[in-house]
Amino acid sequence: MSHHLNDTIVALATPPGAGAIGVIRLSGPEAIAIADRAFYGKSLSAQPSHTVHFGSLRNEQGRILDEVVATLFVGPRSYTGEHVVEVSCHGSDYILQEAIQLFVRLGARLANPGEYTLRAFLNGRMDLSQAEAVADLIASSSRASHAIAMQQMRGGFSDEIKKLRQELIDFASLIELELDFSEEDVEFADRSKLEALVHRIQRIIKALLDSFQLGNVLKNGVSTVIAGRPNAGKSTLLNALLNEERAIVSEIAGTTRDTIEEVLNIKGVQFRIIDTAGIRDATDAIEAIGVEKTLQKVQSSALLVYVFDVAATQPEEVRADLEKLVHENIHVLVAANKMDLNPYTKQEHYFPKDSPAHYHWVPVSALNKMNVDYLKDSLHDAVLTKKVNLESTIVANARHYEALQKAYESLARVLEGLSAGITSDFVAMDIRAALHHLGEITGEISTDDLLGNIFSRFCIGK
Amino acid sequence: MSHHLNDTIVALATPPGAGAIGVIRLSGPEAIAIADRAFYGKSLSAQPSHTVHFGSLRNEQGRILDEVVATLFVGPRSYTGEHVVEVSCHGSDYILQEAIQLFVRLGARLANPGEYTLRAFLNGRMDLSQAEAVADLIASSSRASHAIAMQQMRGGFSDEIKKLRQELIDFASLIELELDFSEEDVEFADRSKLEALVHRIQRIIKALLDSFQLGNVLKNGVSTVIAGRPNAGKSTLLNALLNEERAIVSEIAGTTRDTIEEVLNIKGVQFRIIDTAGIRDATDAIEAIGVEKTLQKVQSSALLVYVFDVAATQPEEVRADLEKLVHENIHVLVAANKMDLNPYTKQEHYFPKDSPAHYHWVPVSALNKMNVDYLKDSLHDAVLTKKVNLESTIVANARHYEALQKAYESLARVLEGLSAGITSDFVAMDIRAALHHLGEITGEISTDDLLGNIFSRFCIGK
Repeated sequence: MSHHLNDTIVALATPPGAGAIGVIRLSGPEAIAIADRAFYGKSLSAQPSHTVHFGSLRNEQGRILDEVVATLFVGPRSYTGEHVVEVSCHGSDYILQEAIQLFVRLGARLANPGEYTLRAFLNGRMDLSQAEAVADLIASSSRASHAIAMQQMRGGFSDEIKKLRQELIDFASLIELELDFSEEDVEFADRSKLEALVHRIQRIIKALLDSFQLGNVLKNGVSTVIAGRPNAGKSTLLNALLNEERAIVSEIAGTTRDTIEEVLNIKGVQFRIIDTAGIRDATDAIEAIGVEKTLQKVQSSALLVYVFDVAATQPEEVRADLEKLVHENIHVLVAANKMDLNPYTKQEHYFPKDSPAHYHWVPVSALNKMNVDYLKDSLHDAVLTKKVNLESTIVANARHYEALQKAYESLARVLEGLSAGITSDFVAMDIRAALHHLGEITGEISTDDLLGNIFSRFCIGK
Repeated sequence: MSHHLNDTIVALATPPGAGAIGVIRLSGPEAIAIADRAFYGKSLSAQPSHTVHFGSLRNEQGRILDEVVATLFVGPRSYTGEHVVEVSCHGSDYILQEAIQLFVRLGARLANPGEYTLRAFLNGRMDLSQAEAVADLIASSSRASHAIAMQQMRGGFSDEIKKLRQELIDFASLIELELDFSEEDVEFADRSKLEALVHRIQRIIKALLDSFQLGNVLKNGVSTVIAGRPNAGKSTLLNALLNEERAIVSEIAGTTRDTIEEVLNIKGVQFRIIDTAGIRDATDAIEAIGVEKTLQKVQSSALLVYVFDVAATQPEEVRADLEKLVHENIHVLVAANKMDLNPYTKQEHYFPKDSPAHYHWVPVSALNKMNVDYLKDSLHDAVLTKKVNLESTIVANARHYEALQKAYESLARVLEGLSAGITSDFVAMDIRAALHHLGEITGEISTDDLLGNIFSRFCIGK
C-alpha cells in the first residue's frame, strides 16, 4: 500500500442496492475539475465551497445519465482535507455504476477500502485512533458500542495519550541532551521527577488497560451462557428473554452447527446468548460430549445464567451443578424457574446463609414471563456494576491494548533502570520504546503495513 | 391515502445496510425547524438555501448521536417543492435509526413509500408521468430501460400528451359554448377542423401505442427461449452466451422450480433467457409434459433460439421441430451448433432456397465459443431492427397504455359522431372522455386511489 495523494479517487459512498438516492464521492486535487467534465448546468469550479448545485450528468457523447445534485467541498475544508465533490444520483445500481465508470474515464481512480479516511489521516484531519473509530462507528449496533466509538472518534482517548507522550518527550530530550555531554557527567533531567512522571503515566495506562475488557465486551456484546439440567426451562427462558425484543433479535450461526447465538439488546448493552444442551450425569459417551461442550462454553463466557426447576431439583443437586460450572472469571445468576409451581421457594433453602457460595438469585417463571424483566435488569446491572461511565475513556481496540501494554512494560524497565542506577543511554532507549508504542496508537508513529492493515478493514467509499 | 402537505416527513433516503454514509431526508414546512432542534454547530434556519453545514446531531439529553453534514434546500427550490433538509450521517443502521426516531420525537412523521415524489407532484414540481419515471429510473438495470425512464422523467412523453390535450380542450370549449346557445343552432367549432384534429391526435396516439410493446420489452427485458433436441448443446450455448458477461448476470428463480431465467445484457439491451428441456418425440408421459412446457414457454416468448447439432440432426428433423415451435409473434434464430464437427454445413442444406421457411441462420460452435459474438449481435439486432431510436418517445407503462387506448376509443366515437351528424352534447361527452383519459397520464386528472396505487410502488425515502 503506497499512499500517494496526488491522484483523485472515486467510489460509491452509500450502500449498494436500490434506494431513493445514491451518493458518489470524488476526492483529490482534480475532484472538482473531473466532476465539471461530466456535470452540466453550471461550472462547479466557479462555485464557493459548501454549496449544492442541481444539474445533469452526461457522458462523453452527451447522453444524459442522470439528473443530480452536486455538493462542493473545497479543500482543506472537507472530510479528507482535499477537494471533495459528492454527487447525489437516483439510487439505481445501473446509474451509479455508469457514473463511477464515467468519472474513471474522466481521470479518477477507484478508491481502495478506507482510502478517504486514510487521506483524512495523512492530511492531518484526524489521528489514527480517530480514524479507526470511524470504522467502529459505522459498525456500531448498540448504544454502548456507539458511545465508545463516538467518544474515540471525538478524540477523548488519543488526547490523553498525546498529552502523556508529550510530557515523556520533554524528559526524553533532556536525557538525550545528557548523552551528548556524557563525558562531563551532568544531569539535565531530574531523576526523581522522571520517576514520578513514569509512575503517573503507568497509573493512567493501567486504568486504560483495565477498561479494555469492558470496552471490548460493550463493543462485541457480553458472552452469556444459559445452562441447567434437562427440562429446567432453559429454552423457554431464552424465548421469554427474546420475545419482547423480537424486532432487534437476530440469529448468528456459529462455527459449529449446534452453536446458535441469540443477540439480545438490554437498554443499549448487547448480550450474545448461548443456549446449551442440558447437563446431567453422563450415562453414555454422546451425553458426555454434550456436557463437555457446555462446560467449554461456560468456560469462555463472561456471564452464566444457571436455570433450575424449583419443583424438581434438590438443593444439593443445584450446588453440585454450580460447582462444576462456575469459574473465577464468570458472573453467575441463578434463575430459580417454575416459581409458579412452588411459590414459597426461598434462596436460603438452596444456599444457607452460612454457605460460602453466594450467587445473584432471580426467581422466575419463564412460562408465565414472571420476573423476566427483573432478570434482564440483573443481566444489565451485572455489566454496569463495574460502574462504567461510557463517556469516560475506554480502550476497546485490541491494537491499542497491545500498544498500551508494551508502553507499560517499557516504562517498567525505565523504573527498574532508574532504581538500579543504570546509564542514561539505556534509560533513554526504554523511554524511546515507550514513546514509540504510545505514538503507534495515535499514528504519530506508523508504518505502511500498519496503515494497510487498519484501512483494509474499512468499507469502500469511506 | 389522504394527501395533507401540512406536516413534515422523514425517511432514510439511501439503501439500508452499512456504508460510508447514509442520508436522512426531511421535507415539509417544519423541516428546517425540526432539524435545527437536533443539529448543533450553527442555526440552520439562518443559513441560505443550497448550502451544507458540518455539525453534530444530539438527542434531547444532549448525547451526541453523530457528526453530520446537513444540506439545506429552502422551498420551493427543492425536490418536493417544500423545505428540505438532508442529513448525511455515518452509515450505521444504529445511528440512522436513532436519528430518524429523534426527528420523529421532534415533530416529523415517518414518510410513506413514494411520499417525497408524491409531494413533488402535488406541489407541481413534476407531472404524474414524470413522477412514475422516477421509480422506473431507480429500477432501471440496463441502458435501454434507463434511457426510457430518463426520457420520460425529463418530460418528453408527457409534453406531447399535454400539447394534444390542450388543442382538444380548445375545441371542446367551443363545443361546450355551442351547448349554452343550443336553442340558437350556432356552430362555434368548425366540424371539419375538429375532425382533422381528432385524426391527427389519433395518429400520434397510435404511434405511442405501437411503441408500447417495444418499450415494455426494453424495460423488462426481451423474453428469449433456447430450445432444441437433447444434446443439441443448449446449455453449452447458454453458458457461452453468459460467460463473458458473468459479472452482470444474475439468476431469477421463476415461479416453478424448473424455470430458471438468466439475464443477459447485450449492448444495453436486456434479455431474459430461458433454457428448456430437450424436445423429442415423447415416448412416455413425463417426457410429454416436458415437451408441453417447452412449447408453452416458446408461446410466451418474443425470441426463439433454436439450437441443433449439425453433425447429428437431419434437415427434415430441423424443419419439423421448427414447425412445432414457431408462432406468429416470435422472431427465430437458428443456431447451427457443433460447426467444428461439420464445417461445410450450409444453410441451403436445411432450408432450400425455394422453401417458404426462412430464419436467421447463425452457425456456431458453443463449445469453442465460435461465432458466439455474432449470435449476440444477431439477438441485439433482432430487437433493434425495429429501428428504435431510444431518445424518441416510447410508452412503457401499462397504465399509460391503457389510458391511451381508452382515449383512442373515445376519439373514434367522436369521429363516428361527427360523420353521423349527432348532436353536439354527445360529441362533447366523447371529447371530455378523451380529455379525461389523456389527463390521467400526466396527472391533470387524478384520484386518490390512482395516486395511492402509483406511489405505493415506490421505495420509502423517494
